[in-house]
Amino acid sequence: VVFLEYAIANRMKTLKGSAIREIFKMAGKPGVISFAGGVPAPELFPNEELAQISADILRKEPELALQYGITEGYMPLRKAVKQRLLEKENIGKDFDETIIVSGAQQGIEHAIKILINPGDGVVVEQPSFIGTLNALRSYEADLYSVPVQEDGMDLDRLEDLIRKHPHIKMIYTIPTFQNPTGVSMSIEKRKTLYELACKNNLIILEDNPYGELSFDDEKLPTIKSLDTEGIVIYVGTFSKILSPGLRVGYVCAHQDLVGRITVNKQISDVHTSMLPQMMAYEFMTRYPMDDYIQKMRALYKHRCNFMIEKMDEHFPERCSHTNPRGGLFIWCDLNGDFDTVEVARECAKDLVVFVPGSTFMVDMEKKSSGFRLNYSNMGDEAIEKGIRILGRSLTKCIGK
Amino acid sequence: VVFLEYAIANRMKTLKGSAIREIFKMAGKPGVISFAGGVPAPELFPNEELAQISADILRKEPELALQYGITEGYMPLRKAVKQRLLEKENIGKDFDETIIVSGAQQGIEHAIKILINPGDGVVVEQPSFIGTLNALRSYEADLYSVPVQEDGMDLDRLEDLIRKHPHIKMIYTIPTFQNPTGVSMSIEKRKTLYELACKNNLIILEDNPYGELSFDDEKLPTIKSLDTEGIVIYVGTFSKILSPGLRVGYVCAHQDLVGRITVNKQISDVHTSMLPQMMAYEFMTRYPMDDYIQKMRALYKHRCNFMIEKMDEHFPERCSHTNPRGGLFIWCDLNGDFDTVEVARECAKDLVVFVPGSTFMVDMEKKSSGFRLNYSNMGDEAIEKGIRILGRSLTKCIGK
Repeated sequence: VVFLEYAIANRMKTLKGSAIREIFKMAGKPGVISFAGGVPAPELFPNEELAQISADILRKEPELALQYGITEGYMPLRKAVKQRLLEKENIGKDFDETIIVSGAQQGIEHAIKILINPGDGVVVEQPSFIGTLNALRSYEADLYSVPVQEDGMDLDRLEDLIRKHPHIKMIYTIPTFQNPTGVSMSIEKRKTLYELACKNNLIILEDNPYGELSFDDEKLPTIKSLDTEGIVIYVGTFSKILSPGLRVGYVCAHQDLVGRITVNKQISDVHTSMLPQMMAYEFMTRYPMDDYIQKMRALYKHRCNFMIEKMDEHFPERCSHTNPRGGLFIWCDLNGDFDTVEVARECAKDLVVFVPGSTFMVDMEKKSSGFRLNYSNMGDEAIEKGIRILGRSLTKCIGK
Repeated sequence: VVFLEYAIANRMKTLKGSAIREIFKMAGKPGVISFAGGVPAPELFPNEELAQISADILRKEPELALQYGITEGYMPLRKAVKQRLLEKENIGKDFDETIIVSGAQQGIEHAIKILINPGDGVVVEQPSFIGTLNALRSYEADLYSVPVQEDGMDLDRLEDLIRKHPHIKMIYTIPTFQNPTGVSMSIEKRKTLYELACKNNLIILEDNPYGELSFDDEKLPTIKSLDTEGIVIYVGTFSKILSPGLRVGYVCAHQDLVGRITVNKQISDVHTSMLPQMMAYEFMTRYPMDDYIQKMRALYKHRCNFMIEKMDEHFPERCSHTNPRGGLFIWCDLNGDFDTVEVARECAKDLVVFVPGSTFMVDMEKKSSGFRLNYSNMGDEAIEKGIRILGRSLTKCIGK
């Protein structure tokens, strides 16, 4: 139907299917080693506990689980999340409110929908999370990027952008164990970023899916914990510490913004599925959540270190990489005039896949010499084999 | 923070909190009889079956339930829904595709987001479902309404609107057991509506949450079943035939449109929660779904008839009502210069609540003499008592 194509709203026109769709398609195939995803280790899912919990809920409180719930979320879970945010992250001022959302992605999409007019300026880290970049594109934001340095966003560049472009309204950041770089923003930069935002009436959208997955006990303050003015929208999730398939996340922000998000969520999915919300709550209450997360941290630390060890053994010398202290990703750079989309296609022929850097850029058409590797999802044997093959493929593509 | 208010995107500015918020708040309170909701009878939820199913899933296929899924939905459920749509509704041409969404509301919101530019014209039935009206407002649609007659939309008025306003792009309809009127569109009107849409390059958004809840065996064809051109977006849900709390619905539309919805869902909630999808699938497969729906139909038929009987006994004579043959709602009209927002406030003092007509109108500020009653959620005793009190309150407000 010819007219259907014309009927598509302008906001959707910048959103195209991924250029590396065929690589992603390979990721699930047997025999393929995938460093492409951002998925938790399935062997740590508390299957039996959740089986017990779900059956209990449906027997003891079936009406709560199966009937419509309120848009703001299952009240006991909201309370437990608020409590945890306060204890762990020192988040939750008097003016703040917390709403349960259907995964962090929904929190991000809603924050953008309620705030960004077509043409409004938004600054993102480069590279950054594609889910947010695409949500911003879908609301026709005018995107600006600042490079991620070893200690987070380049704030000089940010200040420069803010000065030059007064229509900038929001800054999007993943300050801790950033996706895709694995890098964390220093305390000093967090403070300066917050001050910059205050001074310029900017909203900070802080995305923190990986904050609890640190390899050591050093704890960086969330930007939201510094937020005396109510300008930080904080998005968190159970996806990386319990299960992504449940789709339970949360947003903590100034109550006026959460009010708007609630109105929008009402017309978006009415409320987050009740059973997953109740399961998250019951798991938090019945089981020692932190012990469980501790196991994850230890496993991911081992896998990250092991992967880097193997990379240092097998990768071409010119290939540099970040050294994450938590999270799920290592960022690599071929440091030269290479297009990692082409390299990824070549490597895929040897049945190893990863995500090329251009995917994470504001301008996806521009070639990038960077790429992202995920280490959380796979055992030592697969990591070793995959990195060995990848090293060989990379060498084929770019030399020693 | 003063600037936060200024920061809100234009699209959200027409979306205000409900004027009858205080009435809705009463609905859940003890001692209050609520005809306000649109919720299934909880005594028919298959609690034990779903408890068993959820535990089985988490023990047998934990990784499928807890890990990320694909945006299009859990494949066996998608197949089962396609199969059911084909068998029950004759829906599913070669060009069609089906995607699982997080409740029908999400399907509606996504259809609007991918198609409606600010200022695009959309025609809705009047009265209509507030969730869709607000979703349309949030994308700054230019709303036009046509009255619902005894046999559905006033098509003369529709034709007139289409002729006068060439920027009309979409028609939203709930043709079967409409919310809030309970009225169904005749076969003739369905055909004419479809032809009108084809002739004028309009998209029809067909919302059918209540179609399976008919009181008799007469079956009206869905508009989608007439769709030889691929211009109808059909939205369905498990909310009214299994459980609304699970938040599982689906959209069947031309594959190009479903492709766009998929791209948008990816940045909206990534995918619908896996466990609820798998539970819906297992319930459909393991249990005789139609027997279960048959029980619902019989119960709602009884409650609807019983409520109308009591209304005829207790309501003022000037109050007319529709005679639904399925669904969840009766629409009443006080037939005079009355504002049912005021009437609803008065009745609420006697602890009976319902939704006043203006809520369902394009112009919510205009007073309406209509109101909606729900009969599905409550036993005979509560219905009888509620209608008796309501009759007394109404008589107090408007006389005999």
